[in-house]
Amino acid sequence: MSTINDVAKLARVSISTVSNVLNGRTDRMSKDTFARVEKAVTELGYQPNRAARQLKTGEAALIGLLVPSLTNPSYGALAREIEAEAWESYGYRVVVSNTYRDPRNERAFLDDMLTHGIRGVIIISSLADESHIEEVVRKGLVAISYDSQSQRAIQPVIDHVSSDNVAGGRMAAEYLIANGHRCIAFLTPRGWTFSRAQKREGFMLAVEAAGIRGVVIEGALSSNYADEELAELGMSLAGTVAEHPERPTGIVAINDIMAVGLLAGLRKRGMAIPADVSVVGMDGIALGTFVAPPLTSVRLATRDMAKAMVDRIMLRLKRGETTPSTFRFPPTMLVRESVAGPPLRR
Amino acid sequence: MSTINDVAKLARVSISTVSNVLNGRTDRMSKDTFARVEKAVTELGYQPNRAARQLKTGEAALIGLLVPSLTNPSYGALAREIEAEAWESYGYRVVVSNTYRDPRNERAFLDDMLTHGIRGVIIISSLADESHIEEVVRKGLVAISYDSQSQRAIQPVIDHVSSDNVAGGRMAAEYLIANGHRCIAFLTPRGWTFSRAQKREGFMLAVEAAGIRGVVIEGALSSNYADEELAELGMSLAGTVAEHPERPTGIVAINDIMAVGLLAGLRKRGMAIPADVSVVGMDGIALGTFVAPPLTSVRLATRDMAKAMVDRIMLRLKRGETTPSTFRFPPTMLVRESVAGPPLRR
Repeated sequence: MSTINDVAKLARVSISTVSNVLNGRTDRMSKDTFARVEKAVTELGYQPNRAARQLKTGEAALIGLLVPSLTNPSYGALAREIEAEAWESYGYRVVVSNTYRDPRNERAFLDDMLTHGIRGVIIISSLADESHIEEVVRKGLVAISYDSQSQRAIQPVIDHVSSDNVAGGRMAAEYLIANGHRCIAFLTPRGWTFSRAQKREGFMLAVEAAGIRGVVIEGALSSNYADEELAELGMSLAGTVAEHPERPTGIVAINDIMAVGLLAGLRKRGMAIPADVSVVGMDGIALGTFVAPPLTSVRLATRDMAKAMVDRIMLRLKRGETTPSTFRFPPTMLVRESVAGPPLRR
Repeated sequence: MSTINDVAKLARVSISTVSNVLNGRTDRMSKDTFARVEKAVTELGYQPNRAARQLKTGEAALIGLLVPSLTNPSYGALAREIEAEAWESYGYRVVVSNTYRDPRNERAFLDDMLTHGIRGVIIISSLADESHIEEVVRKGLVAISYDSQSQRAIQPVIDHVSSDNVAGGRMAAEYLIANGHRCIAFLTPRGWTFSRAQKREGFMLAVEAAGIRGVVIEGALSSNYADEELAELGMSLAGTVAEHPERPTGIVAINDIMAVGLLAGLRKRGMAIPADVSVVGMDGIALGTFVAPPLTSVRLATRDMAKAMVDRIMLRLKRGETTPSTFRFPPTMLVRESVAGPPLRR
């Protein structure tokens, strides 16, 4: 690709002169100079690129997107919707990075976005501490945090968009309760994130309202967050579920990937689903249709949330003074085949 | 974020003067002017960004990545590896777009990359016609095409990186044959792509070498390519598999997603896998461990291919004259639990 430098060389003029021609500042220019620049531009097929516009405005028509990992189908689906919305509605492209929920990766990406002239970033992280994000926001970044919530009651600096996770946890538990279960379990990786805490809170609210037993079954992920590991963790916790002293008959898994692993682990132990144990996931990934049995889940409003995040970034890029807010989207129940009543022997 | 314009305004000088200070061209500048610019730069926290460097070199530290859809876990995994390699080895970030294999989407993205100053693009497409890519290459883009192959015997203009799909199709069929199957089927969406044709060719070579029966079972996808549809198609073709007059006892599916759908469809019809029918996928996605039964597959060398594509782009960005080549990576057999011998009644 030819640069403004190439044009200047070929036309034997300075870069400023080329810039003047490209920007219509030709009043005091000789006809010969103008003709040479025009000819060089044509010959080289030079197109003044967005970098030039970016230098003036400080902005590129790009937004950043941080995801824990694109191998989690739930994030893959969200990334696809964000990309489609940014391009189709605004002509913006998306720069993506996998962070494995490591704040150092997140910070490096955010710093990097500024040097690329990218001012809007969507951060899927759900880490408790957002100080590394707030710091970059003070340098001029517009940030939307997904599946998290503001730690500042006053003067938030980041927009927050998420599913209503309390409602999600409650809905999953209530669905099991409505099917007759009197002892249910909440399956989650150890380690605090906003979304995990909120789903758990919703689960507990439903358990308490119904006056039934609710237990939490946790397992540790290695420090490097990887989504294959979530399925492995669900699989390895099947033993804990099967041998739990409280004998829960229904399980709410923190997300679909963990539920899919749990199903595989329960099958391996010879347990029938939903005859012996019922399982509810959260996310509503397409692949949930194809596991055995098809996974009943709490479906996120993925497309609506993607649209809200992109719209919000664009609004704030144009009107910087808009106060950051929190947006919560209600999930819906996605009934497939992994839930039935509790086994009769109970 | 402050721009060079803001600095110029605050210092009450022209943009060229600010640029001169930033680039050390201060010989003929008054001390007062220099001091005003320096003070404005400090006060505004202005950082000359990469856009400035980009204007000079015509290049951004970004590469483009076109994928049919990030919701296909196989492409999600490949995108993750490409992103990690580009950032960790070269400090480049990745701009990603979903194309649903539509050449118009691909073309719009490629044109867009040039205006963003992005010169290296990885294209996952496998479309037969690459003329829209070659056209943009002539404008200066460095393109790597994944899972496709050059249509030009002489003077190729695009690098091609792919799994050895002929070997993959052959390996899958040979694994079934080694397990005693004498009639096997190749399951594929209708519609020609390089990778489909190559996998099918490998399948047929193995069938012919062994002197057994090989049949092809096809089904139509809607025009809008969506990966959920591939699983649905696999599921809907379970009936064709079960009622096929040749009664194939082993099936090679074109990819894991289609195999996962087929497993679900066969289960629905009450067929046991692998007791009644054996199934082999291709890709080796992590989720294949968690379906019922765990899916035997042909595993792609995803990380090696991602590294090769990124390395190749970087080499060609630095040394434009390198001749485009074709790189094929051998897949390996991933044995899980979806293959056994054919049922005794046959």
